[in-house]
Amino acid sequence: MIDIIKPTLVINKTKILENISKISNFSKTNSITFRPHFKTHQSLEVGNYFKKYGVRSITVSSVSMAEYFSSDWDDITIAFPINILEINQINNLSKKININLLIDSLDTLLILEKELRERVNFYIKINVGYNRAGIDYSSDKLDKIIESSKNFKKLNLVGFLSHFGNTYNTRSLNQIKKVFKDSINKLEILNSKYPNYDISIGDTPSCSVIEKYPPFISEIRPGNFIFYDLFQFKLGSCKLENIAIRMLSPVVSIYNDRKLFLVYCGAIHLSKDYIIEDGVKIYGYVFLNNYWDTENKIGKIISLSQEHGLVTIENNTNLKIGDIVSIIPVHSCLTVDSMGEYYCDKKIQIMN
Amino acid sequence: MIDIIKPTLVINKTKILENISKISNFSKTNSITFRPHFKTHQSLEVGNYFKKYGVRSITVSSVSMAEYFSSDWDDITIAFPINILEINQINNLSKKININLLIDSLDTLLILEKELRERVNFYIKINVGYNRAGIDYSSDKLDKIIESSKNFKKLNLVGFLSHFGNTYNTRSLNQIKKVFKDSINKLEILNSKYPNYDISIGDTPSCSVIEKYPPFISEIRPGNFIFYDLFQFKLGSCKLENIAIRMLSPVVSIYNDRKLFLVYCGAIHLSKDYIIEDGVKIYGYVFLNNYWDTENKIGKIISLSQEHGLVTIENNTNLKIGDIVSIIPVHSCLTVDSMGEYYCDKKIQIMN
Repeated sequence: MIDIIKPTLVINKTKILENISKISNFSKTNSITFRPHFKTHQSLEVGNYFKKYGVRSITVSSVSMAEYFSSDWDDITIAFPINILEINQINNLSKKININLLIDSLDTLLILEKELRERVNFYIKINVGYNRAGIDYSSDKLDKIIESSKNFKKLNLVGFLSHFGNTYNTRSLNQIKKVFKDSINKLEILNSKYPNYDISIGDTPSCSVIEKYPPFISEIRPGNFIFYDLFQFKLGSCKLENIAIRMLSPVVSIYNDRKLFLVYCGAIHLSKDYIIEDGVKIYGYVFLNNYWDTENKIGKIISLSQEHGLVTIENNTNLKIGDIVSIIPVHSCLTVDSMGEYYCDKKIQIMN
Repeated sequence: MIDIIKPTLVINKTKILENISKISNFSKTNSITFRPHFKTHQSLEVGNYFKKYGVRSITVSSVSMAEYFSSDWDDITIAFPINILEINQINNLSKKININLLIDSLDTLLILEKELRERVNFYIKINVGYNRAGIDYSSDKLDKIIESSKNFKKLNLVGFLSHFGNTYNTRSLNQIKKVFKDSINKLEILNSKYPNYDISIGDTPSCSVIEKYPPFISEIRPGNFIFYDLFQFKLGSCKLENIAIRMLSPVVSIYNDRKLFLVYCGAIHLSKDYIIEDGVKIYGYVFLNNYWDTENKIGKIISLSQEHGLVTIENNTNLKIGDIVSIIPVHSCLTVDSMGEYYCDKKIQIMN
């Protein structure tokens, strides 16, 4: 049991295993490879939770993250249009394990073909509506890349990779399903044109609500689902009780006259991501009596400074200065990254 | 000279010294103590830049930060309503250096009076309109605290401390001046009622634009001004050329058809703080040819994922994949905290 005297991030292994199990079962039923994204938990130890579900390949979001996980995993997709300035790191990795690169321009391919030392697999990043990165699914640039790739010696085209990130802009289960269906339809057109390539997809919202996948989908790569968070809850991806992460924070002041209290927990702990409720930015739900309680919310964080969080007092409580409250973060990935550490069952006895 | 191959945060010592010098001169003219807030740079090395300006006392935002800086500084105000759960850390610090605590409730004072081992100075946190923390300047709670404090053996009341954080909600120099004037008027009332106590104030916006302080102000505690950032620029606190911090980031893909390009630089590097321009969230200004250029902006970051930044192409440039762009961050404090490191002149030769 550790003393909680400042903001401390904790995870719940029981909930995590339930979250993994759900996606694992579903991918087995659909005969799809489950290649979870590890950018959310960023931990070798938590990564190992996946092994008993038969997971053998993973996704990461940077070359540095691939280096970190390469001690335990030998099949890693770096799901970020590759940064050619990290060519030395990529060459070192590809000597050691199987890495899959992500590419969305012929320029990058030509540089890599020249600079790579080992033969490396790659996916073409496909844009089906999120409009962040990637080549449009119907672009004639694809022909050119696919044609060029046939002559490459160092680069092996495995397939197409897409991220339906626009599911994050939805506000209901039906909207998630609609984005998913529209995106899948576009990938089906792509698949009918180029049938001999894998197709990799998988954001947490659609992986949380879609039960059946068409046979041309090869793999899914969700990440956030391991912990979920308030953002996913608002989207409809999960219930509050599925959220497997909490920030524990000391109460430092109580302003009953303003119906607010102050916690030692700010933007450097939670990140500045927010949800909107009734026109107000909310940075977390706050609970008092039981860290994993989801029923008796005492307030919401309505303002975050560097180290402060200001919380509404919604229910009469016997809150005291020095109490530890439990906060459901808005964005678990950024909260984990901001904190740089978290605790689970064996290190601390506080979680049950 | 280090190779820039991934997001790298750099600072400009010349600009920093100019920024420090301006506030230092101004505080000397006004006979006010300059007690800079060190939460922005978080560095012993950068902290030492202040010493040649005669700075002898500093401000920090957490007990942990006070511990870190206690090796070089022996007069530290912890400008955060103190967290009583860190009493052991506070007791260890107060044995070693002079610390000033911040308190806004009698409950906390009573606990501290019982638990402190050494005699410690404290300020009462005063709310004059920001409504985050503190006791209202006109509250009758103040009488009770001041009266009680006369009997304290471990706690010595030094004065009142206020943060005009609502200057951050302004949109023009005149609005900053108005918030400042309103806040000062309230503190003047406080001072006339309790004349024998110090009054500490000082946010970056007002310290950047207010030239003359009334004599009852004892000290100022700005922090962000050392680097400034895009947020301060938009407020009117600084010019672009005063901003002494940049994120250098690789270009990973260019989408000329969508007039966008992608940089390896995301929310885990810059934080999610933004400004709004023409109704659009902006996470940074982007420059190409010279890291410290402020004239030839090539675009703005309009979307941030965990590791990606999507940038508008505003001007025709000869941008190439693998180029390093220079980004002015929206919020330097959170960017520094997210990165956990940065480089200055001697470590890298890239800055001039």
